[in-house]
Amino acid sequence: MSEVGEFGLIDVVAGMVAAGEKKGEAWDRLIVGIGDDAAAWHSEPGIQLATIDALVQDVHFRLGMISWEELGWKSLAVNLSDIAAMGGLPRYALVSLALPQNTDVRDIVLFYQGMLTLARQFEVAVVGGNISLAPVVTVNVAVLGSTKGPGGRLLKRAAARPGDKVAVTGSLGGAAGGLEMLERGLEFDTESTAALRRAFLRPFPRVKEARILVTKGVKAGIDISDGLVSDLSHICEASRLGATIQTDLIPVAQSLNANFGPKAADMALSGGEDYELLFTAPAHVVEAAATALEGRGCGVTVVGEMTLTGDTAVTLLDENGQEFTPATSGWDHFGAEKHGA
Amino acid sequence: MSEVGEFGLIDVVAGMVAAGEKKGEAWDRLIVGIGDDAAAWHSEPGIQLATIDALVQDVHFRLGMISWEELGWKSLAVNLSDIAAMGGLPRYALVSLALPQNTDVRDIVLFYQGMLTLARQFEVAVVGGNISLAPVVTVNVAVLGSTKGPGGRLLKRAAARPGDKVAVTGSLGGAAGGLEMLERGLEFDTESTAALRRAFLRPFPRVKEARILVTKGVKAGIDISDGLVSDLSHICEASRLGATIQTDLIPVAQSLNANFGPKAADMALSGGEDYELLFTAPAHVVEAAATALEGRGCGVTVVGEMTLTGDTAVTLLDENGQEFTPATSGWDHFGAEKHGA
Repeated sequence: MSEVGEFGLIDVVAGMVAAGEKKGEAWDRLIVGIGDDAAAWHSEPGIQLATIDALVQDVHFRLGMISWEELGWKSLAVNLSDIAAMGGLPRYALVSLALPQNTDVRDIVLFYQGMLTLARQFEVAVVGGNISLAPVVTVNVAVLGSTKGPGGRLLKRAAARPGDKVAVTGSLGGAAGGLEMLERGLEFDTESTAALRRAFLRPFPRVKEARILVTKGVKAGIDISDGLVSDLSHICEASRLGATIQTDLIPVAQSLNANFGPKAADMALSGGEDYELLFTAPAHVVEAAATALEGRGCGVTVVGEMTLTGDTAVTLLDENGQEFTPATSGWDHFGAEKHGA
Repeated sequence: MSEVGEFGLIDVVAGMVAAGEKKGEAWDRLIVGIGDDAAAWHSEPGIQLATIDALVQDVHFRLGMISWEELGWKSLAVNLSDIAAMGGLPRYALVSLALPQNTDVRDIVLFYQGMLTLARQFEVAVVGGNISLAPVVTVNVAVLGSTKGPGGRLLKRAAARPGDKVAVTGSLGGAAGGLEMLERGLEFDTESTAALRRAFLRPFPRVKEARILVTKGVKAGIDISDGLVSDLSHICEASRLGATIQTDLIPVAQSLNANFGPKAADMALSGGEDYELLFTAPAHVVEAAATALEGRGCGVTVVGEMTLTGDTAVTLLDENGQEFTPATSGWDHFGAEKHGA
């Protein structure tokens, strides 16, 4: 990194962004991108959304386990997922990279290639950032989003109602399986290996799916970053409700089921970082949403119900409707041992 | 930190923010603050601004040298200064803290006290963030701002014109003096010690002053974070112009002059992190701006001129109008040795 210095690197990044495609509303509204004190754009009517998230080396990832290109992708993806989880469209990204002195400039280029590939898919404009020294690679990305137009509706954690069905998109546990595969050097068939690796290192944020949920009348949602139980408990706390999960209904990732045996169900229950959507709504709203999403190739599974129990606990039920306690608790982002360190 | 965990800490921070004053347009527009997947607010007409900046332990600060309260203040201040440098009003802040496992919760509370004290002064709403583990304290803050209303004007690096006067607010070198005092354990009188410490650790962003510059017709500006020469060269590159600095005109911080003797002038020329405004405009515009700012107790000094030289270099002139090369170059944020490591 010392070869080119901070300003040289900013030029490299600005050049990559400038060379890329600039399609969509975010780019159309942009006034000042990388290279001034702040980015500037013509504001969009409606609701503005903003989120920030960090990926820290040896806490959230290991350099030998994730490629720089995947790191760039994932560090944007987790933020796009947060905007999706509010029902919004991501528009602009700011990227703060803190890097050891000996970081190779080519790796930084790969990082941005990964990030810009994903950004392009959602017409997100990377408009600013910061590069500084640090003992370990630390990526912070802030993403600004919009609900597009006045009267935009949001998915909120606090909007669940008693009797709402609890549903998830896609399948769960793939990211936990990918982490375990990489951590323990497990060897599976080519297809499973690719699927598990992709689930953990290259999550695809459910931006379009969340927009459809909102149009179908879903009001309460979150993305699954901490794990199904943990994220449902966030909805419970914000909505001051309890919830049940019918654990035998959980859609376990196919590659997880095929390779992790009886552990798979527990990993799907508690593993984090799948970045699927978890939402609640009355049964007929969930059905309408499911039909719309399934038309786009995204499965929707009802896994439980919101309850008026007096406390905000998540109750797990087995296939016989009996309560049970899982072997592991949620995916804590402080559980560094689970994430690599 | 492990005492309370990530979610416990988020509750502590959310409680501090909730208990604080919520005055001003940012709070009035807010829909969802800390505690959901992203913050949400009713967007403001006009131009939206966004910036992100990082402070990394042993690169930008040392824990023994800065208090947690000062760290909170400074990590917001440097971002408010970036919004000021665009001529905008800061509105919302997102805070990403990465901390060693053994960090004391009380220190995190102090950090937020410092940050919220400054936020309150500018009616900035802290609306989200992230807390994770890291080997060293790493603070990333993103700030969103606004030019308030349609037709808002900006201060841009690229807007300097040949013949523009180059001017700075306040005085320079105080932060460099503060760093050197703390690094070398220098002892000065109480007043100088306080002034130098404050200049380095508790900079006050020139938000209101920048708004006045814009209303007086100033179009080109930057904040001095890297040092006068370095930041003027950013204006030169963006505006494709050269510039001269009449070094004997530079307003050297009083406490620097009083304690650093002949070195003071060089420190004022190259030292970074003063967070004063550097701007260029035709002489009559600078005069009008100076009158307005001086009425608010903020000095303005013309230190040079933008030139049409064919290259984008900053030329330093001594008191006899002779070119010279300074003893040190700019304040490079990669120069970890200058910042602590």
